Amino acid sequence: MTTHRLRFLPLDREVEVPTGTLLSEAAQQAGIDILMPCGGQGRCGRCAVIVEGGEVRRRSTQRLSPEDVAAGYALACQTVVEGDVVITIPPQERIERRLKEGKRAARVELPFPYDLHDQPLRKFTVTLEPPSLQDQTDDWSRLRRELARRYDLREVQISLPALRKLGRVLREGEWTVTAVVELDAWDRPEGPPRILDILPGEHLESLWAAAIDIGTTSNVVWLVDLLSGRVMAQAADYNGQIARGEDVISRIIYASKGDGLQELQELVIGTLNRLLEKVARERKISTDEIYKVVVAGNSTMIHLFAGIPPGPIRLMPFITTVNQLPVFPAREIGLKVNPEATVDCLPGIASYVGADITAGVVSSEMCGLDGLALFLDIGTNGEMVLGDCTWLIACACSAGPAFEGAGVVHGMRATVGAIEEVWINAETYEATYRVIGGEKPRGICGSGLISLMAEMFITGVLDKSGNIHLDLPTERVREGKHGPEYVVAWADDTATGEDIVITAVDIDNLMRAKAAIYAGFSVLARSVGLTLADVSRVLIGGAFGQYINVEKAIQIGMLPDLDYDRFHFLGNTSVRGAYMALVSREMRRRVDEVGQMMTYLELSADNTFFDEFNAAMFLPHTDMTQFPSVAVLLEGR
Amino acid sequence: MTTHRLRFLPLDREVEVPTGTLLSEAAQQAGIDILMPCGGQGRCGRCAVIVEGGEVRRRSTQRLSPEDVAAGYALACQTVVEGDVVITIPPQERIERRLKEGKRAARVELPFPYDLHDQPLRKFTVTLEPPSLQDQTDDWSRLRRELARRYDLREVQISLPALRKLGRVLREGEWTVTAVVELDAWDRPEGPPRILDILPGEHLESLWAAAIDIGTTSNVVWLVDLLSGRVMAQAADYNGQIARGEDVISRIIYASKGDGLQELQELVIGTLNRLLEKVARERKISTDEIYKVVVAGNSTMIHLFAGIPPGPIRLMPFITTVNQLPVFPAREIGLKVNPEATVDCLPGIASYVGADITAGVVSSEMCGLDGLALFLDIGTNGEMVLGDCTWLIACACSAGPAFEGAGVVHGMRATVGAIEEVWINAETYEATYRVIGGEKPRGICGSGLISLMAEMFITGVLDKSGNIHLDLPTERVREGKHGPEYVVAWADDTATGEDIVITAVDIDNLMRAKAAIYAGFSVLARSVGLTLADVSRVLIGGAFGQYINVEKAIQIGMLPDLDYDRFHFLGNTSVRGAYMALVSREMRRRVDEVGQMMTYLELSADNTFFDEFNAAMFLPHTDMTQFPSVAVLLEGR
Repeated sequence: MTTHRLRFLPLDREVEVPTGTLLSEAAQQAGIDILMPCGGQGRCGRCAVIVEGGEVRRRSTQRLSPEDVAAGYALACQTVVEGDVVITIPPQERIERRLKEGKRAARVELPFPYDLHDQPLRKFTVTLEPPSLQDQTDDWSRLRRELARRYDLREVQISLPALRKLGRVLREGEWTVTAVVELDAWDRPEGPPRILDILPGEHLESLWAAAIDIGTTSNVVWLVDLLSGRVMAQAADYNGQIARGEDVISRIIYASKGDGLQELQELVIGTLNRLLEKVARERKISTDEIYKVVVAGNSTMIHLFAGIPPGPIRLMPFITTVNQLPVFPAREIGLKVNPEATVDCLPGIASYVGADITAGVVSSEMCGLDGLALFLDIGTNGEMVLGDCTWLIACACSAGPAFEGAGVVHGMRATVGAIEEVWINAETYEATYRVIGGEKPRGICGSGLISLMAEMFITGVLDKSGNIHLDLPTERVREGKHGPEYVVAWADDTATGEDIVITAVDIDNLMRAKAAIYAGFSVLARSVGLTLADVSRVLIGGAFGQYINVEKAIQIGMLPDLDYDRFHFLGNTSVRGAYMALVSREMRRRVDEVGQMMTYLELSADNTFFDEFNAAMFLPHTDMTQFPSVAVLLEGR
Repeated sequence: MTTHRLRFLPLDREVEVPTGTLLSEAAQQAGIDILMPCGGQGRCGRCAVIVEGGEVRRRSTQRLSPEDVAAGYALACQTVVEGDVVITIPPQERIERRLKEGKRAARVELPFPYDLHDQPLRKFTVTLEPPSLQDQTDDWSRLRRELARRYDLREVQISLPALRKLGRVLREGEWTVTAVVELDAWDRPEGPPRILDILPGEHLESLWAAAIDIGTTSNVVWLVDLLSGRVMAQAADYNGQIARGEDVISRIIYASKGDGLQELQELVIGTLNRLLEKVARERKISTDEIYKVVVAGNSTMIHLFAGIPPGPIRLMPFITTVNQLPVFPAREIGLKVNPEATVDCLPGIASYVGADITAGVVSSEMCGLDGLALFLDIGTNGEMVLGDCTWLIACACSAGPAFEGAGVVHGMRATVGAIEEVWINAETYEATYRVIGGEKPRGICGSGLISLMAEMFITGVLDKSGNIHLDLPTERVREGKHGPEYVVAWADDTATGEDIVITAVDIDNLMRAKAAIYAGFSVLARSVGLTLADVSRVLIGGAFGQYINVEKAIQIGMLPDLDYDRFHFLGNTSVRGAYMALVSREMRRRVDEVGQMMTYLELSADNTFFDEFNAAMFLPHTDMTQFPSVAVLLEGR
């Protein structure tokens, strides 16, 4: 048998192992302790190492991004030796950081070649003949004349603020100036070009714009240089409105009282302005140099952003004031970019299927490939779109905030201290878990709850109806204050000094949430005479989606039981869609087309939803034929 | 000889007089004292009476408006009896008021039939199908759909503020609403219609807009109901900027320092807002109901109004930043009308030939009739336009503020206490005068100065060079502190308790002013190979022009020596032009056409101007052949 030499850095230890040996085994042999909380099943991603050189074969790259793989990362428990290899074992913090931030900080690639001329912003530098007593043409006409002569720009318009500085800038630049021009806005493709700003001298080094996603929980800003089409800085933060309500419904109620609307608008604008300042600082520019903004977000967020009362969204028959806002200048809402920058809010199609979904569908490239696809974005609401892009049908089911940590005793958002993944030993019912930030746990976030519920079900702590078995030989199941509960972490091991538990009531809330989501899928498929098995790709957007463990989500019956390779985690598809619409008119048109093509199915008006919901109120489902892989797993138990 | 019975009301006295008797003679015969400060020459207008019935013949109606004549007014000194007549002698105050305010308060008539469809503002009332679970169309699309179906309005856009109230208004109006729509703005005639405001229920009773003239001295607002096209209220006041400088040059300098520009903008907006509130109050409406504004004014005033630095206007080569502003929403400058109302500033053509002149030319109907016309607007600057509307040539001469009362020891603006007309007895050199408001005089306004100068020249107090003859047998000519002077009013008769005088220095300033104006005319005419005698109509706009006595102005050589009936006093042609452009797209286009057609002649770049100016620095002129009527008058002296 061929053996190979393995060298582990930075410890500089060497071992010799035969072909096919797992890196994790080789490390153990070298006396190196690699963390594998999932027990070497490739589920947790904690055993990532860097292959500096040599031949290896990755059996699985689950929990690694393509960028990770390209950078040499491999899961020690899923990678076998096929030649002499040099391995670096990164410090644990670096893995933690990669897991949490890796995708966010990755360079964003466009799925098409960037074409400056497929977006409407331009900079034009001109040198004018100075005025004289023989040619007293006014400054503005003089500039217009030269733009027409030199660049064939006709019928150019100018903003009042640009006019106000025109005289000074022309003289300061000694009659050489750079005009920042928007050739047309998306809603007036035939409209005249418009000068947004005027700068003294030549300024052709960059041309800034921003793509924004306004999530109910998180806001994201991408700073884009339109000359290259590249994302040059990214920033994200919690939406400042969170203090006034965690979900859209509570925000809508808040907005309807007193100055609530204005306050919520100021809060989100405040958050965005801080993010805009942050990305501007990172690139050492002024926010005034940002000349265009494209915004995606759910319908309520877009209403609040623009200061439009969202009240009717909440009330039967659930009507937005507007699905497609007009393009407006940033100064109308005090957004910290150039005051004349146009703000283009992408279109939604209904109260609960907003621009985050139309943008998401476009950026998911759902329409770029063949076959039936299911796009989903799960947060407080589960929004989903089924189709093959000759048709698209969408719905939203109010999953409730359980997966965002609300309505669950020890639920919390996915921040430092949250348990994000759990493993339960099928023999001992003991739990191990991974905590964001690696500290002692303070609670459980959404992905942790899915993971926990699946483990409890697979190991028999929960029955099919979601009841906790109290007669198991472990102290972890017990009768708590509010009924049966399972102890995930003992008080000694927590940051709060209290046991972290999940209760029967929590389980019930989570059952309702996952049942609502799966019922949504079912109704969508049924409404077009298909089944979920026909879906060739499941495209999962949204920050939460990024951290879902598909296996576990299938085990609880939240996601359809399809081969794992049909699932694609796309991260924040909303901001990515806004970015694509920003840099490409073609993509901007596609967002409109997707919106127009999409049929909205109002579940509260659909008779079959309630039946599907009830059928999904089991683990994983009443109809086990829909979950063959789970059936196999349970048989093996 | 036929005699007629005359009855004088309200005294109820009767006399019998022969045909051809002057009313003034008949009144004297009846023992009634009628004021005739001009000595019965028809020049002062103070002897106006009302012919209640019977036959009279008016020899002259100088100083009476057509409206006055239609109302029965006649000058007692210029009207002869031709049958039995009943006359009312109005109280003196009523005459005073008519002289001062008569024209301003008169109903404004359009020179063309009003056509609602020749202007772009409309109100559309629609009743929408309420939304339901089966039709969840968003409010805005629902409204748009119905506007398209009912009125064939396509591609309608909506302002953000209108969107913000849309949801509430639709529900408040129980799905019947009225949309205030601008079909297109002047600068985008092919552009889409735009909803400015949305009102609950049906609101078709009126549709308000405003025409504004921003003069350096006075601001005028006309409130117009676009349903009828009529001016429904008028208001005027001094421009609040006066406190920061009397003329445009001092304002430009003020604007260039610190926050001067912003302060001047706030001052004029403040004045206009008070006027807008006043006209709104008069019609019992809210200023928010005013949906469109058309503005005329000189180039400096328009720059300050829009907050554009006017600096280069003052400096060689005298360049405006912009002659034609883009249309902008009122909220951008805080003008107190509906914030979404479009503000259309009419175009000027040069630093010193502004929108007041293009508007003036259009409203003067200079282009409506045959023959060569001369339009002029005299204030601090004399702006003048010569042409027949196959061509137009314009210039501006800096007359200086002498005719506005500045640079003259006892000069003042035309307010209460100003001497506005003077008569000097050719034998005694004694002066009589008329004072605005009838009180004791405090100074002399522009028309008073012209009148005074002419009387001094005709009676020989001044020689041809403008020198005061100190050897006349009257105490009124004397050597004063600052050289020779003439006493117009003795201290006992003045409100200040001081003699009101005109000095040699004053005369010199006035000579320069009138010479500049006449030289302007001459250069214009010469530049196109014509003479002033070819002018068939002299159209005089501007508030000052309204009060000029043509005879006197010709005598000093300020106006060309043409038959009086060629002179037409048009009052505020600027606001009238704004009004016409507001109610008629055709007229709005004509303002543009006039602007484009007009050639601007920069006098400081013209070699002949200085010669013409020097030639005009005599009374009336070095070339007496240009002033035949004055030559005749002087011969008779």
